[in-house]
This record gives sequence, C-alpha cells and structure tokens, in this order.
Amino acid sequence: MNPEQKIASLEAELAKLKAQYSAPSISPLAPVGGFPDLPIVRGVRFASGAAGVKYQGRDDVMLMQCVAGSSVAGVFTRSATRSAPVLDCQAKLAAFKVSDKPIAVLVNSGNSNAFTGGAGRASVNAICDAVASVVGTDVANVYTASTGVIGEPLPHDRIVAQIQTLNANLSEDGAKGAAHAIMTTDTFAKGAAVSINIDGEAVEIVGFAKGSGMIAPDMATMLVYIATDAAVDQDVLQSILSGLNEKTFNAITVDSDTSTSDSLMLVATGQSNAARITDANSAAAVTFAGGLRSVMLDLSHQVVRDGEGATKFLEIVVRGAASDASAKTVGLAIANSPLVKTAVAGEDPNWGRVVMGVGKSGEPADRDKLSIWFGDILVAENGWVSPSYTEDAGLEYMKNADLQITCDLGVGDGTATVWTCDLTHQYIVINGDYRS
Amino acid sequence: MNPEQKIASLEAELAKLKAQYSAPSISPLAPVGGFPDLPIVRGVRFASGAAGVKYQGRDDVMLMQCVAGSSVAGVFTRSATRSAPVLDCQAKLAAFKVSDKPIAVLVNSGNSNAFTGGAGRASVNAICDAVASVVGTDVANVYTASTGVIGEPLPHDRIVAQIQTLNANLSEDGAKGAAHAIMTTDTFAKGAAVSINIDGEAVEIVGFAKGSGMIAPDMATMLVYIATDAAVDQDVLQSILSGLNEKTFNAITVDSDTSTSDSLMLVATGQSNAARITDANSAAAVTFAGGLRSVMLDLSHQVVRDGEGATKFLEIVVRGAASDASAKTVGLAIANSPLVKTAVAGEDPNWGRVVMGVGKSGEPADRDKLSIWFGDILVAENGWVSPSYTEDAGLEYMKNADLQITCDLGVGDGTATVWTCDLTHQYIVINGDYRS
Repeated sequence: MNPEQKIASLEAELAKLKAQYSAPSISPLAPVGGFPDLPIVRGVRFASGAAGVKYQGRDDVMLMQCVAGSSVAGVFTRSATRSAPVLDCQAKLAAFKVSDKPIAVLVNSGNSNAFTGGAGRASVNAICDAVASVVGTDVANVYTASTGVIGEPLPHDRIVAQIQTLNANLSEDGAKGAAHAIMTTDTFAKGAAVSINIDGEAVEIVGFAKGSGMIAPDMATMLVYIATDAAVDQDVLQSILSGLNEKTFNAITVDSDTSTSDSLMLVATGQSNAARITDANSAAAVTFAGGLRSVMLDLSHQVVRDGEGATKFLEIVVRGAASDASAKTVGLAIANSPLVKTAVAGEDPNWGRVVMGVGKSGEPADRDKLSIWFGDILVAENGWVSPSYTEDAGLEYMKNADLQITCDLGVGDGTATVWTCDLTHQYIVINGDYRS
Repeated sequence: MNPEQKIASLEAELAKLKAQYSAPSISPLAPVGGFPDLPIVRGVRFASGAAGVKYQGRDDVMLMQCVAGSSVAGVFTRSATRSAPVLDCQAKLAAFKVSDKPIAVLVNSGNSNAFTGGAGRASVNAICDAVASVVGTDVANVYTASTGVIGEPLPHDRIVAQIQTLNANLSEDGAKGAAHAIMTTDTFAKGAAVSINIDGEAVEIVGFAKGSGMIAPDMATMLVYIATDAAVDQDVLQSILSGLNEKTFNAITVDSDTSTSDSLMLVATGQSNAARITDANSAAAVTFAGGLRSVMLDLSHQVVRDGEGATKFLEIVVRGAASDASAKTVGLAIANSPLVKTAVAGEDPNWGRVVMGVGKSGEPADRDKLSIWFGDILVAENGWVSPSYTEDAGLEYMKNADLQITCDLGVGDGTATVWTCDLTHQYIVINGDYRS
C-alpha cells in the first residue's frame, strides 16, 4: 500500500467510526414518505410563526383555534414537578364548561417554562390573557404548552408579540406547519389522520405530536394535539381519551424518564353532520373511539420511532399474566431494561435478558411456565431454551428493524402490549456528549 | 504535512477514537492499591481452583469451609426467575439449625445455572452431594452459587471432579484466591475487612464480592461472601444482615436490572474469644453491626465502582421526604434515570434532569419546596434555580470522579442515600457490541 492508499484507507476508517458515534440527522425509523397529507377538520384552524423564543430561523409557536361549542379533553404528565402550563391546563379542564366562545391552544418550543417558580405562572397568565383578547374568547378557554429548556424564565413577551399575526394567519390546512413549530430535538414531524363514518356521515380525526425522549433541559417533552369534527359530550370525550391513552401513549417508553410537561389535548368541534355522541357505550362512540385509537397508536409509535438514537422499533407482547395491569408492568420492565435495549441494538437474540426482565418486574410469574418468542420463533419454554430453537434463527431475526418479543407467563389471562426502541451509542451522544 | 506526518496524525486520531469507545481493562474507579490484605478469620478456610466450566487458564471455582457450630445468614435476589442454586440456598436457610458438622459454600463462575429447568436442580443436588461427602457434612449444610452464562446446562461433573483437590487445598488465607475465582466481567476483585473489639476481644469481619452490572447471559450477578469469627445466634445474625442490606447492597444500582442469581451469605464461626451475641439490641450486637456495615458498604461501593463502563461514582442523598422508604424511591428514580446518568458521564451539571427524576418517582414532592445541591453547591431552591448558582461552578464540580447530588424535598423527615455510576459509551460497548 502506497502512502496515498494508506491515507485513503485511514480516512475511510475514521469516517466510518465517526458516523457510528454521531447522532443521525433523521431517525432511520422515520416513516417513508414524510409527513402525511392531513384532511381538513371542520371548525379547527392552525397557524405557526417565529417568535424567536430560543431557536432562530424556524417557526417556534403555533396557535390552534376551535369554534365555539367545542368539547375539550386532555391527559397530562403525572410528574410531581409539573410545569406551570400543565398545572394551568389541568385546572381549566377540571372546570370545563361548553362555551359560546372559541377554544384556543398556544404552544411554544425552545423553553418549557418548567421549574421557573412564580415567574412561570405569570408567563402563562400573560400569554393566556393576550390570546383571549386577540382571539375573542375567555381566558378559561385558552390552553398553553411549552417545550424546551427548563429552569429559564420564558420570554413570553416575544410570544405575545406574535399573537396578532398568528390569529390573522389561522388556516384550515395549517396543521403541518403547527406540527413543525412545536418540534425540539425531534428528527421528523409526526402527523396522523383517519376518516371514519358515523351514521353515514364523514368524520375526520387529525393529530400531530412531538417527542423523542424525555430530555430535560433540552426537553423533548411529548406534546400531542388531536382535533375532530365529531360532536362529543365533554365527559364522554374525556373518558374515551383517558381509556385509549393507557394503551397508546402510556404504553410507550424511550428511556423510562418522565417529562414535566407531557400533554395530550383533544378537541371535538361538532362541525361534522354526524349526530352528537352522548353515551360512551353507543355504537357511534365505539366507532369514534376506534378511529381515535388508530390516530393515537400511529402517533405514539412515531414518537418511539424518533426515540433518541433509535435504530430498532420493538413491540413487547405479554400474555398469560395475572392481570392486564400485571402484564403491562412486566412489559415495561422488559422495555425499560438497558440490558434488553442494548442487546436489541447489538442484534443479539439475548433471551436470557428477557427472562431477567420478567423476573425483576416483581409481578407473579413462574420460571418453569414462561415461554418466549422472537417474532414467530419459539425461543424458551418450560423453564429452559426450546429444543426447536437455534441461535442462527435468532440472529437472523434480530437483523430486522421492526422486532416483536412475546412472553407468555403462564399464570393467568392478563395481556398487554408496549413499545420501545433500542439503546445505542447515539443515545449517549445525544444526551451525554453535547457539552463536550 | 508530508504523507508520513499525515498517516501518523490519522493513526493517532483513530487510536484515540477507538480508545474512547472501547471497554477499559480495569475500571478507572478501581481502588488504588488493589485487593486489600485480608486478616484471617478463625474457623474459616478457602480454596480456589480451575474446573474449566467455561473459562480456560484461570480459577473458576471456590470452596469456603466453616467450622461446626457456625451460624449462617443470607439475602437473595427477589427475582421471580431465580436460579436453581438460589432456590436451594433459600430453602436450606429457612430450615437452618446449628450443626455439629461444618458449613460449606461452593461457587462457580462461567455458568449461572439459571433458566436451566429440571437439569438445574439436578446439578445443584449433584454438587451438594459431592461437597457433603468430601467435606464430611450434611447436604443441608452445603450452599452453592453459580454465575455466568444463563440457559446452558451446568457441566457439574467438571466441578465435582475438583472437590477433592479444593478440600485438600483449604487454607485460612485463601480469601483472595476465592475472590478472584468468582469473577466474570468484573475488572477487579473486591475485598474488604474490618477488625472490631467486643468486650476487649478482637473480632474479624472479612468479605469479598463480585458484580459489575446485572448482565445476563454473561451475567455479572452480584455475589457476596462475608465471614466473621464472632459468635452470633442465627436469628440475630439474619436480622442484622437483612437490616444492613437495605442501606448497602439494596441501595446501589448500576443499570436498574436485577439478576436471577444475586446472593449474599454471611457466616459467623464463633471462634473468637468474644461472648456470644444473643440479642440484636445488645451493645455487642450494635458494635458488631457497625463493623459489618462498614464491610458491606465498602463492598457495595466497589461493585458500583466496577459498574459496566463507569467513569463516575455518584452518591445521591435524599432528605425531607415523606418517609425513609419514599426517600429511597426518589433516590433510585434519580439513580436509574438514563438522562441523569448520561449527563453525569458528560460532566454536565444538568439539574433539570434531577428535577425530572424527583417528579417521575411518584413520591410526594413539592416543586416549589425542592432544593438541589451538587456537592456543597446550592443549585436550585424555591422552585427555581438558586440566585447564588453559576453554571461555571456546576461545570467545575462535575469534573470530579466522585460526585454527590443532594435533594431536599421539603415535605417531611425521610432520608435515604443511594449510589450509582454514570452511563457511558463503554456500557453500550460491553452490552450491545460484543457480538458484532
């Protein structure tokens, strides 16, 4: 090898190594085809703009406005250190009454207004007052969320200064812009939609989300906004949303960490021609919940697919547990195990770590009744590796980008499915190296 | 730069990058001075040897023999998928009676005999029978442990073949060899000792441990063996051990994962001249517990210092919690947070992630009463960053290898201290890359 060849070879090796330990500009698990075309939801308009809260040269605020008479539901982080906007939204939702004035939601990225003491509450109030005045509604109808760095005062004046422009720019097809404006460390914007039919009338459900790890202070808080033109009583809307949340957004984990700002809000404008849903057990409610579920599941999976450093999407199915709750605890114990997640990253069919995850969950399980599958491959049964299992089959399966691990605990009828991603060098780069 | 200089420069850069992403041969946090000189404990002898269970060219079995009349106590993993040796030890300890025959403990590395079905139990029985016969004791007095790969049948014949030799080699100063024989992915052997004085009589407490992450299948199970020549009634010994375990080995975490084989056994031979301890509240018991605590704390910290990929040792002190148990839950939530651990690795004084950890713990806390210190530096108070805190001070503090984070929750009198290490690229290398 001459010196030129030697230099070329070393440079190639160096470039390969650097790429391996660099965060990708877009997740390899991002949906093919990019952000979906979202249908218009009657009665909802969106606008986005650049307030310069922290980011420069991009949009960082979005305003969502819904017609008078809309119902609103929400679910929020259970963190004991919730942000000021979350506390405000929860108080307003608890006192919600259908209003003859519009509903407004204002979200900014770049600053989470979390752990900002009394100044945080003052910022929320200043923004809500300004939005109410410009949009022409009551402060009680204005919801906010903030995502980004924590512990720094929110420069709310910059946001307030944009509200007139945002209001003037409200548009029925503004959801895509709004989805981009609320991104922080996300590598792609996340949208989903479904059209359903209730009693012969078309109903649209459209949503978008941001989040890719519960990063604080560059806090990739999970925020989700969903709008539908169905007419749904507020208590029914909240009950459907809370139920579905347990099996969608509350069944995903990137790194087990919980943000101080997680928020999901759902608005039903009632502007479709379908009859109002007043009973959570009616056929129309079941149809509506089915559509909402598919939007929520799609968005929650996109959050996992944008998990920090993710190269694998992992579905964990637990069955045969003592109860559904027990199955979910076992599933999350496996999903949050760094040893399971690093094995998946290394394409290692390391079923011993799945056994470990079941064991550490603290839930009823019987080592000798436990069965484990990787995809359709039976790996372990009767307290030991399956006689039909070959390591080659396991190794081959683990090369897939989308993986499924199934555990049958053999002690009951409880089932649950949870989703997570792998734990890679890129996670360490994103969360540990960014100051070096 | 001429071609030779260019090649040298590229090679240096490549070597630096490779070193950054390689697992170290010995933890940078290993104690200076290596394995300590352990005093002799009257009535206990150790031997180690090479059975070739999996590793070649090193010892992989150890035998510990204690005189007739010894008391034995133990604590074990709570995993629902406990290994065959753990189940056997627990059953024997539950039925323990002081015997006029010796106590024996046999431990192998290289294979954990976990998730091996009926064959696992048969292996335990075969080893116990052989040890009892050679040592001259009852099978009820023989305890075993296995650590290493899981799911593969233990080749117990290789171990049985070594028992005569081990028995012949038993020696009062064999603890160091035994500590080395039980290592798997440990980067250093862990030993600790303390000499105490009970009523004017010298009493020795000596222990050794292995463990550096709950790896399965190359399972760095935590195993701990402690011997003393104190005379202690078995129920008192167990009560003292269980109490101390909560604040030592049960207060450390490397990666939140729980092994199927964790075992800690404590033998008291009664061969010192100190009077028998028969009351857990006596002055002698308090003195003994103090000495035992320092050995257990030392060994548990060494396990953290050998945590996979560790470059920082992190003590987390929680006070002002609703209860001690609540404080420990908060401490472990912070200690197990990948975002806290990666921030520590990156020397980033990221107090927002500590706020997040408190919030996600599910324990009572008040955002506006929370105070956080990095070492002696007050970082946050009254629901916001402290006015006295500077980022430069935080950055400087985080450069230390040993770090302390203190949280005062401001809601009660509960306190707890837990210990962990950081989460680095080396953890991913060790656990995710080893097949690639």
